[in-house]
Amino acid sequence: MIRVLFAAGARCWPDYEKVLRQALAEAGLSADLSPNHAPERVDYIVTAPNGDVQDYSPYTRCKLVQTIWAGVETLTDNPTLVQPLARMVDPGLTQGMVEWVTGHVLRHHLGMDRHILGQDGSWRSEVPPLAADRPVSVLGLGALGTACATTLAGLGFAVRGWARRDREIPGVEVFSGDDGLAAALRDAEIVVLLLPLTAQTRHVMRPDRLALMAPGAVLLNPGRGPLIDEAALLAALDSHLGHATLDVFETEPLPADHPFWAHPKVTVTPHIASATRPATAATVIAENIRRGEAGAPFLHLVDRDTGY
Amino acid sequence: MIRVLFAAGARCWPDYEKVLRQALAEAGLSADLSPNHAPERVDYIVTAPNGDVQDYSPYTRCKLVQTIWAGVETLTDNPTLVQPLARMVDPGLTQGMVEWVTGHVLRHHLGMDRHILGQDGSWRSEVPPLAADRPVSVLGLGALGTACATTLAGLGFAVRGWARRDREIPGVEVFSGDDGLAAALRDAEIVVLLLPLTAQTRHVMRPDRLALMAPGAVLLNPGRGPLIDEAALLAALDSHLGHATLDVFETEPLPADHPFWAHPKVTVTPHIASATRPATAATVIAENIRRGEAGAPFLHLVDRDTGY
Repeated sequence: MIRVLFAAGARCWPDYEKVLRQALAEAGLSADLSPNHAPERVDYIVTAPNGDVQDYSPYTRCKLVQTIWAGVETLTDNPTLVQPLARMVDPGLTQGMVEWVTGHVLRHHLGMDRHILGQDGSWRSEVPPLAADRPVSVLGLGALGTACATTLAGLGFAVRGWARRDREIPGVEVFSGDDGLAAALRDAEIVVLLLPLTAQTRHVMRPDRLALMAPGAVLLNPGRGPLIDEAALLAALDSHLGHATLDVFETEPLPADHPFWAHPKVTVTPHIASATRPATAATVIAENIRRGEAGAPFLHLVDRDTGY
Repeated sequence: MIRVLFAAGARCWPDYEKVLRQALAEAGLSADLSPNHAPERVDYIVTAPNGDVQDYSPYTRCKLVQTIWAGVETLTDNPTLVQPLARMVDPGLTQGMVEWVTGHVLRHHLGMDRHILGQDGSWRSEVPPLAADRPVSVLGLGALGTACATTLAGLGFAVRGWARRDREIPGVEVFSGDDGLAAALRDAEIVVLLLPLTAQTRHVMRPDRLALMAPGAVLLNPGRGPLIDEAALLAALDSHLGHATLDVFETEPLPADHPFWAHPKVTVTPHIASATRPATAATVIAENIRRGEAGAPFLHLVDRDTGY
């Protein structure tokens, strides 16, 4: 009997219990899944940064810590977590992210806010340019960034991408390295942040990088709050940027008195772009436990050197 | 020398003159393109319903009337227009329509207005369903409807389509005929109107059809204004419908005192979804003239019996 500790929090347990039991059974695993197990008897931990376990040192026989979040920075910063750690790469999360990013790119591309907010009886028939004439840059080309860049290119947008290491994505002009970042951002009209949060990417959107974007450009952040220097963004919005639509923040929930809420050029969405979907995530968790039991390599292991 | 009369109106002439001359030259045609030709000497007319020619009877040697609009109902209603008539099927127009429809479907799917209009400091983190759980119906499966339905299906939406005649579109559940219309509309959460306007489709969205849509459903009309019974739509919005985003109207520009402008559940966009793009349309016009000179069948001829 494999003991699986569900430590992602009591709030998530009702969403996960049934689908996770079912996925474990469908993977042919005889597992005792519970939010309560004696630490020294636990084989696998399903966790979340805001979950029940902060000290991983008593879990001496644990083969894998599997998070249900895409971002792992608070886990990699935890010195007690020395067990193998797997990120969540959930097809449901990826699909939701593609929908949020595509929707908000099209919102800004089409100038929808002018119509949603401006129903004043004036017939202003300016036709927007076609997507081919709209340069969009996606920073971060992991599972989420690649899916978004590919979808936007498929819709006809002129898509550039940036990643730490070079790679090939059909229909996307890929840049890499520090020099590549400036080339990816220069004159971009819509920029999407989907980088992991690491020491290298913290405040990647600082004044000189924001200055590279086109006048009137839009910044979308469905990735990680600290990718943006918030003070620099506010200054850039007051000078040349057109809008920022932000789903993640340094502090969440975003405090009611934060200037982003009242800023006319900022739209706050409440960390809804990247929700893990229990039904699809359960399948991923069960597959990783199956691999552990079969002695096969785990999927989506975090590289503790790069931090993602 | 082929004489081509540009009768689509003085307002369009500056947008078309250069690209159309270039397209005619690239098609190997020696053409005299002008907004002024003696009627009896004209070989081809490039027109628009609101253009310079209302009486087509003096154009006795004209081989083709090519409109730059996708909708032809005002031309088919003109008894003096007995020459062959071609609709505009413009890749630029199709692309623009796909962008408008995809953007507004995602806007309503993601519940964007709640965030665009509700920046009040409250963190309301309800995650929307995935596209696969959102039933979208596209009425009309011509060039525009097929392109939109295919794109929405590619994004993961559960897409139904309806056309007068049955056809196959990968990823789309297609219905046809009167019975099929009810099946296509029943419980739809987002409905997109891209039908041609004919005697059969006028007021196709009447009370019983609107009643088939799901509670809270959204109606998008980037097609033709009179497809909707406006009074019935207003009544349906006051009962079970969630929203209507309308790009076309019985009267355009929409009068400033029309109830749509002030209705909290209506977004008016000013006939921007379906603009013909001169650069791509010019290529289509030149190709049809080339066909006429070569004795080849014209593209996109209007069937005068069906009206499109």
